[in-house]
Amino acid sequence: MNAPDALRKPLPPAFNDTLSARFGSRFTTSAGVCAHHGHDESHFPDALPDAVVFPHDTDEVVAIVDACREHGVPIIPYGVGSSLEGHILAIHGGISIDFSEMNQVLAINAEDMNVVVQPGVTRKQLNAELHGSGLFFPIDPGADASLGGMAATRASGTNAVRYGTMRENVLGLTAVLADGRVIRTGGKARKSSAGYDLTHLLVGSEGTLAIITELIVRLHPLPEAVSAATCAFPDVVSAVNTVIQTIQLGIPVARIELVDALTVQAINRYSKTTLHESPMLFFEFHGSPASVEEQAQTVQELAREHGGLDFEWASRPEDRSKLWAARHDVYFASLNLRAGSRGVTTDVCVPISKLAECVAGVRDDIEASGFIAPIVGHVGDGNFHTIILVDPDSADEIARAEELNHRIVHRALALGGTCTGEHGIGIGKQAFLLAEHGAPAIDAMRMIKQALDPDNLLNPGKILLPG
Amino acid sequence: MNAPDALRKPLPPAFNDTLSARFGSRFTTSAGVCAHHGHDESHFPDALPDAVVFPHDTDEVVAIVDACREHGVPIIPYGVGSSLEGHILAIHGGISIDFSEMNQVLAINAEDMNVVVQPGVTRKQLNAELHGSGLFFPIDPGADASLGGMAATRASGTNAVRYGTMRENVLGLTAVLADGRVIRTGGKARKSSAGYDLTHLLVGSEGTLAIITELIVRLHPLPEAVSAATCAFPDVVSAVNTVIQTIQLGIPVARIELVDALTVQAINRYSKTTLHESPMLFFEFHGSPASVEEQAQTVQELAREHGGLDFEWASRPEDRSKLWAARHDVYFASLNLRAGSRGVTTDVCVPISKLAECVAGVRDDIEASGFIAPIVGHVGDGNFHTIILVDPDSADEIARAEELNHRIVHRALALGGTCTGEHGIGIGKQAFLLAEHGAPAIDAMRMIKQALDPDNLLNPGKILLPG
Repeated sequence: MNAPDALRKPLPPAFNDTLSARFGSRFTTSAGVCAHHGHDESHFPDALPDAVVFPHDTDEVVAIVDACREHGVPIIPYGVGSSLEGHILAIHGGISIDFSEMNQVLAINAEDMNVVVQPGVTRKQLNAELHGSGLFFPIDPGADASLGGMAATRASGTNAVRYGTMRENVLGLTAVLADGRVIRTGGKARKSSAGYDLTHLLVGSEGTLAIITELIVRLHPLPEAVSAATCAFPDVVSAVNTVIQTIQLGIPVARIELVDALTVQAINRYSKTTLHESPMLFFEFHGSPASVEEQAQTVQELAREHGGLDFEWASRPEDRSKLWAARHDVYFASLNLRAGSRGVTTDVCVPISKLAECVAGVRDDIEASGFIAPIVGHVGDGNFHTIILVDPDSADEIARAEELNHRIVHRALALGGTCTGEHGIGIGKQAFLLAEHGAPAIDAMRMIKQALDPDNLLNPGKILLPG
Repeated sequence: MNAPDALRKPLPPAFNDTLSARFGSRFTTSAGVCAHHGHDESHFPDALPDAVVFPHDTDEVVAIVDACREHGVPIIPYGVGSSLEGHILAIHGGISIDFSEMNQVLAINAEDMNVVVQPGVTRKQLNAELHGSGLFFPIDPGADASLGGMAATRASGTNAVRYGTMRENVLGLTAVLADGRVIRTGGKARKSSAGYDLTHLLVGSEGTLAIITELIVRLHPLPEAVSAATCAFPDVVSAVNTVIQTIQLGIPVARIELVDALTVQAINRYSKTTLHESPMLFFEFHGSPASVEEQAQTVQELAREHGGLDFEWASRPEDRSKLWAARHDVYFASLNLRAGSRGVTTDVCVPISKLAECVAGVRDDIEASGFIAPIVGHVGDGNFHTIILVDPDSADEIARAEELNHRIVHRALALGGTCTGEHGIGIGKQAFLLAEHGAPAIDAMRMIKQALDPDNLLNPGKILLPG
């Protein structure tokens, strides 16, 4: 499975000895553990690390980085393996740093509405630990991802339209540089003009510039009132036009999600729901009772103008949970539409004014391709996914799915959009990154990478191809 | 006035010839023009550039950068000269790039709520050009600063508590690298995970990493309803505690500003107002009529619990304008408290839970110092300023003011804050930057600077001292 390459070399025995001495059974070269860490949720082939280590704190990560630097061993940070772009695949071998034992919530600063966590804390774990504080952490990629992984990929999800993405919610980081030194970026103040914004440089850097070992993330007050609803539309474009107007009016919706008719079918089958099998929007409104009522009324009027059928309200917490669990399970629900399939997930994001045009064009592209490919999206941000269902053993299908993705990305770029709203570049989108930003910007990224990681040991081959 | 140093060399005649040939009268070495560009609003001594050039577009900036690189000439970007930390001072000589003739609004994308501007566009100019669009640009440092300068210093102001700072409102940039290449960062999509976040790296980089020649900035819908109010408090700590509770309840105030009693005196004298001469909060609420009413009521109750006297409402637009004009003139109003003085302005920002403690401590520091120093602040963000009034000709007073600033900064750092909420590092805060972030983080900044500007030509001596 692991093709040999120039960077992939057997681990030197002295390296193994050093890490074994320091980490005992928390350092392993076991085939089973390596196999588990060489596999993510993408369609890319598995690529196994040569070893896995489970550190407990920043000092231990420094020790790992020092040993890797001394022996020229690639380093791949690993959260829960829910990446969709191959970020955690050890394409050049090396050691996977598994953060599952660095999963402490170190401080809940309720008065300042932030929390200090280790990178292995998952979003659900964090919200469980916040129970009773009156605060919550809103960012919710479908998976129960780790906060370190979410920061590294600049993740977002359904709440980003109101609460922002990891970009807006990471206040500061502790990270280990390739030279083994520990930097502390950002801080607990709500704003600062103190020097280069290293926090934002590391958020989205996919483990290629430094290894995140601690995060300060922003929390938000639990809304006093919450209501959620679904609304069916005659077609996708009518639904999208409702979204566009909602955003342009500045209505602070907490969630506004599109699912196409095929996705609703998948949800109904997988999650035992009885949703109307047409394009739908899922909404959630947060605020004071009066403001929630006002938002809901305005949006209902907009939906009606665009042919939206009756709103179905999910007012009880358990109904809302069921609704959003169904939404978060869309990826797995979609895979069920075709037995044995895997998903090639697209992730474009366009300016909101271009959203209807982009979605309609993508619908046509999918039809022309012959693939089964549900469309689902965080449309309040202009971001939507297609889940192209492929036979993972068919090289031809994967190639055709990649062609379809290529067409979708270039459609979005032509409309002023981005090749990835929230999944990242990983190993599959380097060419799109170049098309989106141009050679000089990519070279600037490469100069920064070269400056901070001259030996190319930090997650090599991700984001940037060799110069 | 210009002390000789290793970097300051006379401009080579060939350099002058090249720029004269290209720019004609838009390139000048005139003493008067250079004097104007060697002076900002800080207390630092003037430091004149050797020449000034007024480009019209990105290509012309490339030509300037190419000539500077060829001849080793330092480059200082210049907006309107309203910097408070010496950013535009030509401390090593060189050429000042004045962006006042790059002041076109290139595109208003109303549907996507963004605008593309040249860096010389000022915030008031932009809002004038947005008139009738239903949108506005909220960021308002006191001065009518240029957007390029505001991005370069990561500026904010009174609206940041609701609308964020330049960090949250710059979507993308066009910038010229030291090697003369043009990069395009970010874009018009609301979010993206495509590669390193060069936009945020440049925002706040004070002209030291690249020269910004175009910006995409976010706009916001004009609120349907606006109301503003002032409320007097028995003491500063009661006012601050009202702020803390307001923020912790998640009330989306648009502005919540503290002025101490001394500042109110200064405002009354300078702006001919008749405000109650005690510590006050200035508020503004944005939203639907119902939501504004609800916010205002909640905040009034909180203020009353903390001893706030009656709210004075400014409901008519002209009354609100007068109120905020008075607030924005605080710097000049304060200078009037002492004839012939200049201000040494401090700019700390602390976690909101520490704000009362920090302000109270700073009040004591000021009293012990014997200086006249009003306190004013964007307290919803935990950010406040003291304007220490000094005799600009007294080296002793300036040294004592810097000592006081030092004490204030270290007080804020001890409380988990930052040495600068919105003014930047410039030439005066390098030691504070080091104290705040530690040597490894500063070294990481230096590695990035070295990678992108190996000849140290871009605004040398700002943010980072030589390694």
